[in-house]
Amino acid sequence: MSESLRTVDIIAAKRDSEPLSEAQISTFIKGYAAGDIPDYQAAAWCMATFLNGMTPEETGYLTRAMINSGEVIDLSGVSGPFVDKHSTGGVGDKISLILAPIAAACGVKVPMMSGRALGHTGGTLDKLDTIPGYTTALSPTRFRDGVDSVGFAMTGQSERVVPADRKMYALRDVIATVESIPLITASILSKKFAEGSDALVMDVKCGKGAFMKTPEDARALAESLVRTGESLDRRVIAVLTDMSEPLGRMVGNYLEVEESIACLRGDGPADVMEVTLRLTAWMLVAAGIEKDVAAAEKRCRGAIADGSAMEKFRANVEFQGGRLTELDAMDGSSRAKYSREVKSTEAGFVTEIDAFAVGMAGVALGVGRDTAADPVEAMAGIEMLKKTGERVAAGDTLMKLWAEDETRLEAGVLRLKGSVSIGSKTLQKRGSLILEEIAPE
Amino acid sequence: MSESLRTVDIIAAKRDSEPLSEAQISTFIKGYAAGDIPDYQAAAWCMATFLNGMTPEETGYLTRAMINSGEVIDLSGVSGPFVDKHSTGGVGDKISLILAPIAAACGVKVPMMSGRALGHTGGTLDKLDTIPGYTTALSPTRFRDGVDSVGFAMTGQSERVVPADRKMYALRDVIATVESIPLITASILSKKFAEGSDALVMDVKCGKGAFMKTPEDARALAESLVRTGESLDRRVIAVLTDMSEPLGRMVGNYLEVEESIACLRGDGPADVMEVTLRLTAWMLVAAGIEKDVAAAEKRCRGAIADGSAMEKFRANVEFQGGRLTELDAMDGSSRAKYSREVKSTEAGFVTEIDAFAVGMAGVALGVGRDTAADPVEAMAGIEMLKKTGERVAAGDTLMKLWAEDETRLEAGVLRLKGSVSIGSKTLQKRGSLILEEIAPE
Repeated sequence: MSESLRTVDIIAAKRDSEPLSEAQISTFIKGYAAGDIPDYQAAAWCMATFLNGMTPEETGYLTRAMINSGEVIDLSGVSGPFVDKHSTGGVGDKISLILAPIAAACGVKVPMMSGRALGHTGGTLDKLDTIPGYTTALSPTRFRDGVDSVGFAMTGQSERVVPADRKMYALRDVIATVESIPLITASILSKKFAEGSDALVMDVKCGKGAFMKTPEDARALAESLVRTGESLDRRVIAVLTDMSEPLGRMVGNYLEVEESIACLRGDGPADVMEVTLRLTAWMLVAAGIEKDVAAAEKRCRGAIADGSAMEKFRANVEFQGGRLTELDAMDGSSRAKYSREVKSTEAGFVTEIDAFAVGMAGVALGVGRDTAADPVEAMAGIEMLKKTGERVAAGDTLMKLWAEDETRLEAGVLRLKGSVSIGSKTLQKRGSLILEEIAPE
Repeated sequence: MSESLRTVDIIAAKRDSEPLSEAQISTFIKGYAAGDIPDYQAAAWCMATFLNGMTPEETGYLTRAMINSGEVIDLSGVSGPFVDKHSTGGVGDKISLILAPIAAACGVKVPMMSGRALGHTGGTLDKLDTIPGYTTALSPTRFRDGVDSVGFAMTGQSERVVPADRKMYALRDVIATVESIPLITASILSKKFAEGSDALVMDVKCGKGAFMKTPEDARALAESLVRTGESLDRRVIAVLTDMSEPLGRMVGNYLEVEESIACLRGDGPADVMEVTLRLTAWMLVAAGIEKDVAAAEKRCRGAIADGSAMEKFRANVEFQGGRLTELDAMDGSSRAKYSREVKSTEAGFVTEIDAFAVGMAGVALGVGRDTAADPVEAMAGIEMLKKTGERVAAGDTLMKLWAEDETRLEAGVLRLKGSVSIGSKTLQKRGSLILEEIAPE
């Protein structure tokens, strides 16, 4: 049974927790991508995989089969090392915009393919789109040239890369099998490795605003990503970071570009900088540029201090068609038409800001989207004037909201009700956002 | 989550082993039967059910939802008690042809809907079709009249009865979820209860020639059938019977009719009679005609001895269009064109006849079919001249085979190679075929 390549036998083997061979998995994925294996057989297989799991070897076979289902980005002729970063998605997560220029300034080549906002989590492409003239629709050649000349380039995922994953993800969404560690692992790694990266630093977010709510779940995914990378002879480093509260003070498409520029200037919020520097440092380690993460982090700080990271950012904006003069003029003033302040009725210290509630308020304001077809607003968003650990007096403004119409503004305010908790006692500073780091031996 | 009626939530609840409510199960089955829920969602749900199981209550809801998906046979105006028997399928299993007339002779009304041969197991309808003029294609009215006037009638399953089960069974076949106890239970019980029975006696066969190979599996199915019957307030009695060796001496469509007639005449093989009388006795108990199974079995023997069971058989043949004179003339002489004898090369005692091998030889000869569309041969088959416990001399004929062409005959002989084991020592008689009996409290 375990060596049969008949579809029904492959389903039965996974059902019975027998490990599948590489031939079985590649036959199944190839057949599914080609339409020879119908959705109902793939659905049964996904559910059996959800419930019985996969070994890192099986997950590696699945990742490779996904990669082989479509085109692979060709970076030949460009000298590496190629390292990318991927996040499982969060609220206020603008790290890619800051990390890619820093890494490039330190000598890493970053071929970055990003996604769009969905549900309460934001999307890098929607943020970049707010830069006047900037386009993320690059041809494969242009993308390659950007990586070569600037050191990084930002693009969307091509329809031709990992089509099997695209098809299976749409199926998993309607058959309650999204939250499967091996299926998530293969989905992430296949996309990243098809895009030309040699190594990957994973930001596995954890907490209310993240896909993984508990450290146990986040750790299980992180372990799976690292072990599957090993089985594919690719270096994957996973960093578990806290996403119980939004990252930084800004949530919004342009607002997060503005905050990212502040970070590159050296004026970024501590939480954003802590996570960004650590992830970028691991990229340098993965690239072999630095041996240990502390030295790498120091080098990254240097790239901000000497302006080289900002230079890379501006070079990328120009390369991708962005108009720097217009971008510079937008700073601090580009906001949606209608605004509202949310004030505190109590005095004390902020003890918690619910990242999920802020993310859903963002969707209401037009920052994010409920379904993939919805448009987003460039200038809508939320500024958090008080974050956890900060003192608040009664009447202080906690948040400021912007939207392009009053209805959306009202909806955003409504969703933020109760999202900021205020305690009466003096509070400890919030702890480190770096919860755990998992690297291959 | 557990009370949501959204399809994806129902799948997720089953995935998470949460018991489903009756509303959830009926909504799901209704949607699936109507085509509103696609096969891929049903497939994921079937796999989750396969792996996580169901409570007897859930299985009861599923059974009821299946029944409600189509027409229910109307036996109003006919006085009961209505009791049917169902077998999980075996080799040489001609019990229905003997049991229905005996039960009817004892006052039970038997509305019997049967199936056709598939794989190594035979089908009652294919056997009845060999009686000249006999038709199993009865209208609902004619079926009802037969139950009323003769005491039993034999028909095929209507397309309009339990269409949801029909559709789901075809799906389960290609997604490796056939062998699920709750899904099998609901499939069997929905068909039987939609056909008008108040109570059901289940022959759960166990061994090489059965669907359930081990007593543990057979017992689990038997328990599920009885408990689910309880949750539906219907009496289900399950009898586990041995199917390691074919039942009786004959395997073949007409050959089994011939052997059934011999049984009704009082000349039946001991193994067929033991199982038939016990199952029929339980029908009398389920019908409330007798209180204990021993007394009921005695009454059944009486119906054979006094000829009343044979009279019921002949009355049914006439009612369903069969020509008795022609049937009588066929006895002992109606065989397919080509025949071959399989002889023993050893002396000793028969220790085992492999029921599965005999069943597959039957398929090769034309008795059964590989796929539902294949035709069957009326007169092909196998006669076993030596059964387990019988003495064999070298050169004795073990089996005789008949087929309509030589190729099939050769194929049948080939499949029987090694199917009869002969030991050298004196052997104990084969034990009772009744392995276990499970009745509701």
